Amino acid sequence: MNAEVGFIGLGNMGLPMAAALLEAGLTVTVFNRTAAKAEPLLVKGAKRAASAAEAATAGGIVVTMVADDTALESLTIGDHGLAARLGKGGIHLSMSTVSPSISRKLAEYHAQRGSTYVAAPVFGRPERAQAHQLWIVISGAPAAKARVRPLLDAMGRQTFDLGEDPGAANVLKLVGNFMIVSAIEAISEGLALAEKSGLDRAAVAAMLSSTLLACPLYQGYFNTIVKRAFEPAGFKMQLGLKDVELVLRLGSETRVPVPMASMVRDRALANLARGRADLDWSAIALGALEDAGIKIS
Amino acid sequence: MNAEVGFIGLGNMGLPMAAALLEAGLTVTVFNRTAAKAEPLLVKGAKRAASAAEAATAGGIVVTMVADDTALESLTIGDHGLAARLGKGGIHLSMSTVSPSISRKLAEYHAQRGSTYVAAPVFGRPERAQAHQLWIVISGAPAAKARVRPLLDAMGRQTFDLGEDPGAANVLKLVGNFMIVSAIEAISEGLALAEKSGLDRAAVAAMLSSTLLACPLYQGYFNTIVKRAFEPAGFKMQLGLKDVELVLRLGSETRVPVPMASMVRDRALANLARGRADLDWSAIALGALEDAGIKIS
Amino acid sequence: MNAEVGFIGLGNMGLPMAAALLEAGLTVTVFNRTAAKAEPLLVKGAKRAASAAEAATAGGIVVTMVADDTALESLTIGDHGLAARLGKGGIHLSMSTVSPSISRKLAEYHAQRGSTYVAAPVFGRPERAQAHQLWIVISGAPAAKARVRPLLDAMGRQTFDLGEDPGAANVLKLVGNFMIVSAIEAISEGLALAEKSGLDRAAVAAMLSSTLLACPLYQGYFNTIVKRAFEPAGFKMQLGLKDVELVLRLGSETRVPVPMASMVRDRALANLARGRADLDWSAIALGALEDAGIKIS
Amino acid sequence: MNAEVGFIGLGNMGLPMAAALLEAGLTVTVFNRTAAKAEPLLVKGAKRAASAAEAATAGGIVVTMVADDTALESLTIGDHGLAARLGKGGIHLSMSTVSPSISRKLAEYHAQRGSTYVAAPVFGRPERAQAHQLWIVISGAPAAKARVRPLLDAMGRQTFDLGEDPGAANVLKLVGNFMIVSAIEAISEGLALAEKSGLDRAAVAAMLSSTLLACPLYQGYFNTIVKRAFEPAGFKMQLGLKDVELVLRLGSETRVPVPMASMVRDRALANLARGRADLDWSAIALGALEDAGIKIS
Repeated sequence: MNAEVGFIGLGNMGLPMAAALLEAGLTVTVFNRTAAKAEPLLVKGAKRAASAAEAATAGGIVVTMVADDTALESLTIGDHGLAARLGKGGIHLSMSTVSPSISRKLAEYHAQRGSTYVAAPVFGRPERAQAHQLWIVISGAPAAKARVRPLLDAMGRQTFDLGEDPGAANVLKLVGNFMIVSAIEAISEGLALAEKSGLDRAAVAAMLSSTLLACPLYQGYFNTIVKRAFEPAGFKMQLGLKDVELVLRLGSETRVPVPMASMVRDRALANLARGRADLDWSAIALGALEDAGIKIS
Repeated sequence: MNAEVGFIGLGNMGLPMAAALLEAGLTVTVFNRTAAKAEPLLVKGAKRAASAAEAATAGGIVVTMVADDTALESLTIGDHGLAARLGKGGIHLSMSTVSPSISRKLAEYHAQRGSTYVAAPVFGRPERAQAHQLWIVISGAPAAKARVRPLLDAMGRQTFDLGEDPGAANVLKLVGNFMIVSAIEAISEGLALAEKSGLDRAAVAAMLSSTLLACPLYQGYFNTIVKRAFEPAGFKMQLGLKDVELVLRLGSETRVPVPMASMVRDRALANLARGRADLDWSAIALGALEDAGIKIS
Repeated sequence: MNAEVGFIGLGNMGLPMAAALLEAGLTVTVFNRTAAKAEPLLVKGAKRAASAAEAATAGGIVVTMVADDTALESLTIGDHGLAARLGKGGIHLSMSTVSPSISRKLAEYHAQRGSTYVAAPVFGRPERAQAHQLWIVISGAPAAKARVRPLLDAMGRQTFDLGEDPGAANVLKLVGNFMIVSAIEAISEGLALAEKSGLDRAAVAAMLSSTLLACPLYQGYFNTIVKRAFEPAGFKMQLGLKDVELVLRLGSETRVPVPMASMVRDRALANLARGRADLDWSAIALGALEDAGIKIS
Repeated sequence: MNAEVGFIGLGNMGLPMAAALLEAGLTVTVFNRTAAKAEPLLVKGAKRAASAAEAATAGGIVVTMVADDTALESLTIGDHGLAARLGKGGIHLSMSTVSPSISRKLAEYHAQRGSTYVAAPVFGRPERAQAHQLWIVISGAPAAKARVRPLLDAMGRQTFDLGEDPGAANVLKLVGNFMIVSAIEAISEGLALAEKSGLDRAAVAAMLSSTLLACPLYQGYFNTIVKRAFEPAGFKMQLGLKDVELVLRLGSETRVPVPMASMVRDRALANLARGRADLDWSAIALGALEDAGIKIS
């Protein structure tokens, strides 16, 4: 495997993902708005692109791991955008958490220029990315999915193919994040009820997360919430709200009420109004505790 | 272990639990309002009590596995109730899903008569009871808990001790059921969103329940809801509503809002209004599907 | 009009209602658990009953205005209860806010003893009761309704007949209280949104309550919430919660989800958890303000 | 009053509003995408503009009454937009229901070009517009507000000034629509509960809307919902959803949870998923009835 690959977006997730590609022996040209973030990769042999567009080469593969729909769209379109740079035969491997509709729109935009857009968002926190253990969901044109496969294998533990609709992988990513945040809210409410009833919250968490709910997701969040260990944030509340709003927007476009997402959105806003934007998103638990009249030290 | 034990309530759960005691070599005297239900146990050596009260002997242990607070209370109190029959040194091992407040009230009632009330509700569906693999949560007076330990070991896989407050085990049972029903609702909404967006719901369920949510609870409910296999009911919706209302009542008494329980209650009512009382409680998913405009065959 | 009437329950509402009967020239025998509350009526010519039961006379009319289902039931049934005292031809005019099911149950109980139960709950705060301007909703047997008509005319401004089902008037009373508390919540959320957006909340309230929402209910609550004038309470939050829970119980019994009532219940609990039981129920607005991060002086 | 005024957007509301200006003696140049809609105004003396931009004259006043933020923004900005046409001294009187943020953004855009943006959304259905009885809320620069005053007086019954923030009037308009839709939902749930309990829904509506809730808003919606007279739509459900989403977006931007708006949004989606986009927005009541298991003929 010696293809050249571009990688744009070196945040908490992008950085270890790009590193995984380097470690797999690929030649990687990286770009990040804050250039200093690229340093650790340059040491490992990455090349630095002078602009986002330059990370893409004609007919090559470029990976994007950026903040949101707006950032992704502005990188992609226009005369100096990624689609124009990639051109015929190029592949845009879009791994950010974005809306299905932007994926469908950009897939069409690429198709008109001979390049291909593949959506491949990931599940897992930074530690999992560092261990190359991400779960990846992918959708798009079969040939392009086959060609990016070695990259996915380098970054992740398992890839799930959702078919050809370029928005499908994003739908599943949003559904997954919705499941996570619903679980956080349920843990929060359950522990508030237990604690106010006089139970030891650690005992409650230990019982439930070793029996009914013996999966890493619950174990992790039970632990965080019992310890109220919301800093440093693995995933900031502000970003969590962004994802919940993507879920709700998808619900709006497809005419699907998602009342648990509505509730979690309102919970997040009440926490953000109290200045908790930079805590981990599981800190929405603080709202449930306060509503129960439980003092938080 | 050759103590005599009484067992009252031979429903879907009580029957295999009483059988487990017999298999462990205990002498068990059983009672059920519908007497025919006791037949399979008589064959295995159980004795039949002519009335609920007669299942209890002075200073002995009696297990109750009955429908609700009202049934439990009417069995226990009064001149011919269990407390009076058990008397000094007797133990009432209350394994039903009831409110913490009835447990606290009956514990006091027993204490005034020299007997001891121990709350020990269980987690697990009938299959798990048959396999003696229930998870049991217990709370109450230490000496009584020690004395019933062999019974618990016969019926369950693991017992979690929540301390001396006789209501504590019931609180945890309710919190656990709340977590389960919240997960069912989240699965329902997530799958509705995915399906309406054009994804294959089985693929979505397979991905999520083998990664983030790889625990038996999610695997089971994802499967049930994907297949819409709501009959025969493992746990009827009507009973599910009863438990959610216990959660909300506890919230009301302790001044703890539990908005997810409120939402699930409303969801359950909308399903019950459509005549689904005898389906499995996971059939609340049908409401989420209908609200998304998805045709259910 | 010279009939003898008993009146039980001299709280904020019962006192001015009984006074209205006296002023209309009726002979009124009153009872209240805290006897001192009766003093102002004795001055006006009321007689004092030594017990609740003694307020009722054979074949007479007794009015009850008590706290809840439990209080009403315990007054009514039993050998020394109101039904037994009233006997053949007697009428129990039940004006408290209670559940439709207790009304139906007590109506049957009375019927078996030859007496008649009429439900006639009222709308209006104490000031309105003092002015004999209550709105009364009534249901039950026609002959009894005709016989109590002069009492209703003395206490209220208008009476609305809901037919023969003794629970019907209670249903309407609960629906009405539900409408009120939903309006309070909507006002609270709307003002929080306006204030956080930088608008003058008094200007917002003035505009809406002189145009779209120009009815006394909105004008009153807009004013209270803008001024945050939650003390003294016209109707305490704790009692408001009781009524919302009656709404939800009725929904549960009839299989009707009432999600706005669920939401208001959760809102009330969060406020009660912060120690606001004795504020006016419109103080649930404080929760909406806090969730918006608005400082309350 | 003989100034020239442009008017863009001749929908259900725009048409009678423009007619009111003509009747007040103003010279009005109108534009509508579907040109035929202008005919009734041309008969009354209006001039037709060949394009939206041509409805605006240098230093003049142009009124816009268009569908949404996007339509408003695209009309306003750019070399051929309204701001460029109006130029120094011109006024853009923006009467559509749009977001506060687009008003603030366009106010700045205008200011940079010497023109002034004034937000003046209206309350009232088409009948009220025809009767020149709209309630108007206005905010923006004082001089411009004074200059447009005669137009407002011609179209409306009363104008409420919210100060200089050009977004303030839009905030109040959204809060008002939120209050309306919350009332519709409360009416829907209340009537479902009453009907399922066996009451005559018309009697319930008659009682409540002549007492507690004796204001035109409730009287109108009680009547519509009792009669299930959702066609023809006064205001389509689809547009109602748009406004609720503007409320939620404002909540999101200002960090204010508005849980009743979340609930109504979910309710609207469930109705839209059943194909009710063109019914009146009060048809969200159908969802509450269905959830109660009430058959709708």
